Amino acid sequence: MIDRLIDRIIELQNPTCVGLDTNFDYLPDDMKMDKSGDEITTFETATERITEFNMNIIDKICDIVPAVKVQVAYYEMYGYEGLKAFDYTLNYARGRGMIVIADCKRNDIGSTASCYSKAYLGSTCVNGKKIKSFPADMLTVNGYLGSDGITPFVDDIKANDKSIFALVKTSNPSSGELQNLKLENGEYVYERMGALVNEWGKDTVGKYGYSEVGAVVGATHPEEAEKLRKQLPNTFFLIPGYGAQGGNAQMLKVCFDSHGLGGIVNNSRGIICAYKKPEYSGMNYYDAARAACIAMQQDLQSAIGKMGK
Amino acid sequence: MIDRLIDRIIELQNPTCVGLDTNFDYLPDDMKMDKSGDEITTFETATERITEFNMNIIDKICDIVPAVKVQVAYYEMYGYEGLKAFDYTLNYARGRGMIVIADCKRNDIGSTASCYSKAYLGSTCVNGKKIKSFPADMLTVNGYLGSDGITPFVDDIKANDKSIFALVKTSNPSSGELQNLKLENGEYVYERMGALVNEWGKDTVGKYGYSEVGAVVGATHPEEAEKLRKQLPNTFFLIPGYGAQGGNAQMLKVCFDSHGLGGIVNNSRGIICAYKKPEYSGMNYYDAARAACIAMQQDLQSAIGKMGK
Repeated sequence: MIDRLIDRIIELQNPTCVGLDTNFDYLPDDMKMDKSGDEITTFETATERITEFNMNIIDKICDIVPAVKVQVAYYEMYGYEGLKAFDYTLNYARGRGMIVIADCKRNDIGSTASCYSKAYLGSTCVNGKKIKSFPADMLTVNGYLGSDGITPFVDDIKANDKSIFALVKTSNPSSGELQNLKLENGEYVYERMGALVNEWGKDTVGKYGYSEVGAVVGATHPEEAEKLRKQLPNTFFLIPGYGAQGGNAQMLKVCFDSHGLGGIVNNSRGIICAYKKPEYSGMNYYDAARAACIAMQQDLQSAIGKMGK
Repeated sequence: MIDRLIDRIIELQNPTCVGLDTNFDYLPDDMKMDKSGDEITTFETATERITEFNMNIIDKICDIVPAVKVQVAYYEMYGYEGLKAFDYTLNYARGRGMIVIADCKRNDIGSTASCYSKAYLGSTCVNGKKIKSFPADMLTVNGYLGSDGITPFVDDIKANDKSIFALVKTSNPSSGELQNLKLENGEYVYERMGALVNEWGKDTVGKYGYSEVGAVVGATHPEEAEKLRKQLPNTFFLIPGYGAQGGNAQMLKVCFDSHGLGGIVNNSRGIICAYKKPEYSGMNYYDAARAACIAMQQDLQSAIGKMGK
């Protein structure tokens, strides 16, 4: 799946991923009302509106953006009805030709990780009948438990042409508390995690030299990102932190190789809430989202240059 | 909530938690058929049967076991219908007076962690109306992202009388790859995580001396568990790994203090699949589950002794 993502990045000259972190509060006021003009106050109707919002954005960006990242926490907070909207959104984006990253940061011991892998990257058997649960192309995972918690995902990656991204150096301010601890051999914890990620993916390197086991590396930490790019030439980066979190194109260009490849940059609120910004005033949310995607593409192109050989 | 859990452990003289990791495959053959005798082959019907199985077990153990731990991965693999069964199971167990641990190992940056916290420990607002999502009393989390990824959970703990357990030293064979790395100051990564857990919980210490921010410490690693018990006198342990994973009562007794308190021991397959063991042959699954709980209680009592002052 990593080759398909990179193909699409080159085709569109756009290493952007739109984060559908769709809080009901982000919706325009008219979408917060039901047909009779009353305020929506149930998960069932709220999540229908969230799905509608996502679909309209997907329709408007699918020809210029290669991927969406759907952050499951924003759906879990609406209970199982939220998960229904999550499922529908993944399916819809795939139907429109987008690559779908389920941002779930799942992690557990082997037998349980195997259930998570079935849920997102494989399928679940019921009396021998295989059924798909949440249809993702790529999944984020957390490797704190070590290799036997990741192996089940790697097996499904190989069997079903999928990818994962493991947390290495996250974009949040406190990420250093664990990740930047220095080990007795002089290495940092995030570098050790990076080495494990490289090991997990080494049998899955594709035509661009990148493996199916990528790393989450925040745009907000350029020093670490630069070291990781050198340490991990075969590891593709999922790069959060652009925009609202303070990362910018100049900070994150260190994540890319000499061919302008090696990463995909996520932006969530900066796109889906663009309609609230003064520069897009008067536009509806999906047109504003498209305009914000084009502005982001230009910003990234100016820092990274042409993508592909 | 930690005081309520310890009260109940003392009352029942039982520091056991039953893990409802209910794979459809674990069900007795007659529960895998529908009313007309055909094999069930949909998530909808499969998850109805999983719920029924859980309810019958809960009914049979709620007077002798203080808590259940519901592992969400086993529900996510059945899609959003699985999450409906998860939700129903949490509600049912609480209704029967059990303390409910949602084993989700959630983790993300602050704004997203806040969504997860709403989902399990708080409530979600829709146009100002607060609605409960998944009604847990306690939640497992993963602290790899550091303090700002945990703070949202701690806020909800304080506001809503809940608890969390953060992964410190997990029960799986590869847990040492990250967790047992030695830092330049001589500390191990799991000890540093333990120190953070102590810090996160320090304002929430209850009447037994334990805080609302507990630690996951595997029964399979007694050496680390013993060190952690000494390092963290105010941290309550959720102890997986008993039974199927190889941990036993002698190995895990180091997790308990001189009053026989300080931890709760989880057993999943050893209880819910007890009916498949030779020693319970001829019993139905819920009677076998109860018998296995009693055997486990006796095993733990023989190692730990009387619970409470």
